[in-house]
Amino acid sequence: MTHAADIISSPRLLLGPGPSMVHPRVLRAMATPPVGHMDPQFFAIMDETQALLRQLFQTTNRLTFTLPGTGSAGMEAALLNFLEAGDSALICVAGFFAERMVEIAGRATTDVRRVDAPWGQPIRPEQVEEALRARPAKIVAIVHGETSTGVRQPLADIADIAHRYGALLLVDTVASLGGVDLPVDQTGIDICYTGSQKCLSVPPGLAPITVGPRAEEVLRARKTKVQTWYLDLTLIQKYWGTDRAYHHTGPINMQYAMLEALRMVADEGLLARFERHAAAAQMLWDGLEALGLKLFVPVENRLATLTTVLVPEGADDVAIRRQLLLDYNIEIAAGLGQYKGKLWRVGLMGYSARPENVATLLGVLARLLPR
Amino acid sequence: MTHAADIISSPRLLLGPGPSMVHPRVLRAMATPPVGHMDPQFFAIMDETQALLRQLFQTTNRLTFTLPGTGSAGMEAALLNFLEAGDSALICVAGFFAERMVEIAGRATTDVRRVDAPWGQPIRPEQVEEALRARPAKIVAIVHGETSTGVRQPLADIADIAHRYGALLLVDTVASLGGVDLPVDQTGIDICYTGSQKCLSVPPGLAPITVGPRAEEVLRARKTKVQTWYLDLTLIQKYWGTDRAYHHTGPINMQYAMLEALRMVADEGLLARFERHAAAAQMLWDGLEALGLKLFVPVENRLATLTTVLVPEGADDVAIRRQLLLDYNIEIAAGLGQYKGKLWRVGLMGYSARPENVATLLGVLARLLPR
Repeated sequence: MTHAADIISSPRLLLGPGPSMVHPRVLRAMATPPVGHMDPQFFAIMDETQALLRQLFQTTNRLTFTLPGTGSAGMEAALLNFLEAGDSALICVAGFFAERMVEIAGRATTDVRRVDAPWGQPIRPEQVEEALRARPAKIVAIVHGETSTGVRQPLADIADIAHRYGALLLVDTVASLGGVDLPVDQTGIDICYTGSQKCLSVPPGLAPITVGPRAEEVLRARKTKVQTWYLDLTLIQKYWGTDRAYHHTGPINMQYAMLEALRMVADEGLLARFERHAAAAQMLWDGLEALGLKLFVPVENRLATLTTVLVPEGADDVAIRRQLLLDYNIEIAAGLGQYKGKLWRVGLMGYSARPENVATLLGVLARLLPR
Repeated sequence: MTHAADIISSPRLLLGPGPSMVHPRVLRAMATPPVGHMDPQFFAIMDETQALLRQLFQTTNRLTFTLPGTGSAGMEAALLNFLEAGDSALICVAGFFAERMVEIAGRATTDVRRVDAPWGQPIRPEQVEEALRARPAKIVAIVHGETSTGVRQPLADIADIAHRYGALLLVDTVASLGGVDLPVDQTGIDICYTGSQKCLSVPPGLAPITVGPRAEEVLRARKTKVQTWYLDLTLIQKYWGTDRAYHHTGPINMQYAMLEALRMVADEGLLARFERHAAAAQMLWDGLEALGLKLFVPVENRLATLTTVLVPEGADDVAIRRQLLLDYNIEIAAGLGQYKGKLWRVGLMGYSARPENVATLLGVLARLLPR
């Protein structure tokens, strides 16, 4: 053997926008030898996973499972299953991931409209109402926690407006679900997805999704087949439901990890989990401000799980992030798009959201920042 | 905690059509804590993976990487990236997975033709030539090792014919690559994919794919966007190539497992690996015949990695498979489609392809079969 035995030489403290740290209990579960995807033991795992996912999404939706892909597969499934050629989609755009929604929706229909807010600000309900009053849409799509900006998007009013105008509300919660309270049924969300590697602290590769009864009706009423077979929700439901009809080979070990992580969410309790995320975020915000740094998003719109902070005058963005990573094994992320070089993005998600991690980052930043 | 600590209570001997057994070395690698998907350590893993994948596929293709989904994601990517509305696809159908190709191709274009062979027989080159002579096709798609039938499809003549008529040759090697010799470049395959959970003995969830220069040219010449963003090969190549442009969050821990498994393939050597699979299969075939069972596929077309055997007269298909699974913890699979209840399917793939496993299965079958 000419290669090193280790897969990686330097474990990292993951404080970027995901993947987050994975608890040893989840890593151990993932290393359990696989059983078959049609084994009764695996069906039991699927059933327990669905029950715990419904708790996580705070929903009673029948169609609730994980997709065999990353968070972006969740986005693709959420859009492509509900859009047919010529359907109208209204996308609320205030960051990088909403732009991705526009890109994906545009591969299904030519009628993609957008309402925009500047990066760092939420979409205002009036904008959505104005667009729908001008012309209805089949779906209104919006991001709850924008990883690119650190904004937490209020959703209650927008849900009301979408429904008043007959649209389905589709919400991306990749960066927020399990870290910030978002009761899917109570809020009136019709289609909701997240990623495994953020606030759930599972390695990347699975996308939990839930679809409500209004949206299921839209699925059933489709005139054409979904343009993706791999992420066709109706086919996947036949595997997760009582049919147990083979569709794809379930990602067995990833599902082990997901189940163990969901058990940990249930053990902790959703409320305690949200409080832990909020407390870690507050500690970070206070600490960054004490270092003289300026937070990008006003506190009322700030996302607890992903903090954006301005790179201070005189600091070298790339050099400091490189020192953090290579000298201290700490990962944070750079700004995206127009904020490249201007923002740092610090994630406190899932098992990463612990006070000792915040203290570590603040202590190292204090050493690295120009005085 | 109200749940059991263990994810599964009964580990299995996996002798079905996949997933196959996973070596402890691969499970340990997978349990390494994740790093970020833009970490230089992860880029090094991607580079080593690409180099080892090229050895596995026996290719020099630039576009060679793993897709973030199961083998069916490989099939979807292979078809949807090369088909635009109105393009002509010719699908060679002699089993369940080729039918799936027809289904997926039909979501991209209305012009899907097929040539059929009875289950258990390979497609004959003359059939392909006749169809292409009648009208050319952009793609000829075929399955190398049909998991539903246990047939190994000869490809050299069909590759020549496809190219002579200007078509790309797309080959599914989900059940064969790494277990049966298939040199991609030498055979003249333009697009080739496999799954992680078969002869590579990685848990399910990744699909290695390789695309040759002719096919890359077709990608570049597309007039419309690919209808799947998640599996858009051109975008994914920008992440795996020197751009390192973020597309999706790489399934980090699955990639750890893939790399470790590919290192094990390289350590063993392709030739030794093919010989090991052939020897295990021969031992199985001899043993089944010694038990008085009849193999479904004539030896000249038989796939070493997946054996189909007729359920003998007087034996209860479901009861015997249930006893194998629940009393002896051995998984084999039932027949599909028209062969439901008539065939058993026994996989000897990757780490499952060992003489001790064959001996175990034969010993238990001898006890369970009617005398």
